[in-house]
Amino acid sequence: MLSSSVETFAQPPAYAIAIHGGAGTISRKMLSKAQEQAYRASLERALLLGDSLLSAGHEALDVAIQVVALMEDDSLFNAGKGSVFTFDGGHELDAAVMEGHTLRAGAVAGLKRIKNPVRLAREVMEQSPHVFLYGEGAEQFAWERSFEPIEPSYFDTERRRNQLRNYLKPTGNRSADSLPKGTVGAVVLDSKGNLAVATSTGGMTGKRWNRIGDSPIIGSGTYADNEACAVSCTGHGELFIRKAAAHDLAAKVKYAKMPLIQAAELLVMKELQQFGAEGGLVAIDRNGHIAMPFNSEGMYRGYKYPSKPPVTAIYADEPASARP
Amino acid sequence: MLSSSVETFAQPPAYAIAIHGGAGTISRKMLSKAQEQAYRASLERALLLGDSLLSAGHEALDVAIQVVALMEDDSLFNAGKGSVFTFDGGHELDAAVMEGHTLRAGAVAGLKRIKNPVRLAREVMEQSPHVFLYGEGAEQFAWERSFEPIEPSYFDTERRRNQLRNYLKPTGNRSADSLPKGTVGAVVLDSKGNLAVATSTGGMTGKRWNRIGDSPIIGSGTYADNEACAVSCTGHGELFIRKAAAHDLAAKVKYAKMPLIQAAELLVMKELQQFGAEGGLVAIDRNGHIAMPFNSEGMYRGYKYPSKPPVTAIYADEPASARP
Repeated sequence: MLSSSVETFAQPPAYAIAIHGGAGTISRKMLSKAQEQAYRASLERALLLGDSLLSAGHEALDVAIQVVALMEDDSLFNAGKGSVFTFDGGHELDAAVMEGHTLRAGAVAGLKRIKNPVRLAREVMEQSPHVFLYGEGAEQFAWERSFEPIEPSYFDTERRRNQLRNYLKPTGNRSADSLPKGTVGAVVLDSKGNLAVATSTGGMTGKRWNRIGDSPIIGSGTYADNEACAVSCTGHGELFIRKAAAHDLAAKVKYAKMPLIQAAELLVMKELQQFGAEGGLVAIDRNGHIAMPFNSEGMYRGYKYPSKPPVTAIYADEPASARP
Repeated sequence: MLSSSVETFAQPPAYAIAIHGGAGTISRKMLSKAQEQAYRASLERALLLGDSLLSAGHEALDVAIQVVALMEDDSLFNAGKGSVFTFDGGHELDAAVMEGHTLRAGAVAGLKRIKNPVRLAREVMEQSPHVFLYGEGAEQFAWERSFEPIEPSYFDTERRRNQLRNYLKPTGNRSADSLPKGTVGAVVLDSKGNLAVATSTGGMTGKRWNRIGDSPIIGSGTYADNEACAVSCTGHGELFIRKAAAHDLAAKVKYAKMPLIQAAELLVMKELQQFGAEGGLVAIDRNGHIAMPFNSEGMYRGYKYPSKPPVTAIYADEPASARP
């Protein structure tokens, strides 16, 4: 608690960004050196894009969206190009965006032919009277707004197909722990002092019945409020929904007056852990404090402050929070 | 504030229930005496069903679901049988349920052939690994669980078709105020001291692109947590989503330690009102305190305590809260 009084007097940075690329059973044993380097390079590239946009004066929402779109195009992550397969051998993509000074939000789920779901989430926010559109309806709205459809096969990757094959084997391990999960997300503080968040995901391997997870649900996987923080979650979506995880973190900051990093640790390392909800989140407040707690073995993550090098992390013995 | 200290020492009732049947531009001028009597009779019938189930020892979740299913079958309300039409002349129904001692939840949206969406929401909660299913996928799950499909024309009513015709007229008033909205919901405290909620809706007249509103979103239109309260919202869904209204009320009780009735009034009469979010909610806590605030002209609502007559209300000069 000593640190929180120090925090109050620290100068907020000009801007800051934090990202995640999914949480799960990610250990040094599991990843080869080459794989680890590839993930770190991708995270760094995303952070440097965010930094260059922020230093050029772009708004938090725009930065969060552009950074997440870059990660969607990267087959390493379970979002956009690298999305996992559904039970039926297809893909259903979800995304959400929100900005903290207006509480404007947009979300889409069940997309099959949209290359960058996060950009459609923004379009829903800015160009429709609605917040949340699903599947074919969301895509019809996209075509009306001049989005170009892509072939669903764009999302087919051999690595993810093997994960589905393994899932469908009679002897396959279908426990939640074994499932390829993962989501990408970015939280941003811009030079005007505004917060924003973007989250995008391919969902869970083998998902059925047009399941919607936490990522596109405002208040579950995604939330931003200048009076509290911006939050993007990753993990076992159903349990994050039941806890209203993203809004719960904002409420701990706003109503319980907890410092962000302490509130995020309480939520993820104690409450979600005890609830059996494996995963983590990244969050940022207007002081530029960054929380990146996770209760899984690892979480792809990183952050960047102005005039400092980007920091990337994967394992539990690396940074899970930062102050300017 | 004097009342809150009194509240603390009051004996909680054996059980209690509160319901709503939608909020909007409902005035004494608009409703005929016969219409008013019909609404009051329907609300009373729902409260008496809840009371009889609660007195027989049924659990809060079961009572909330059975009461909402009764209201779904009643063409007076915009849910189930009385659902409004979409832009394309169809119906897309949404519902959610949640129980407060386990935080278990289930939700469905975009249903076309399910007579009682609230019962399918429960099935998702109890019989699937997921929380939230959409449209055709949700219905496929329903058929696998032995639900019987009904003809989509079951939901066609002349009154709602006229509302769509009016909406589609070039001169039609499409402002959010003029739209037939409405949702039904029940919040329940059972004899074990547990809370639960159920919400069901036909959405907004003329909705497009597979729009999802707040009702089926856990944390937006529906939330229950024994540590705080059970909440069901009704109103301009998009704005309730952006405020994470249902979870925000729970957070005001849990983290800001506000008495339920005071917290609900702050949220609805001040915060949502200033945000332009027309509507209201019903909520209940473990002390049996009931909040029913609304910032629209009227809200169909009611409550019942053991050994007391049911109370129904519609207009702004009737009760908007109750204590045992």
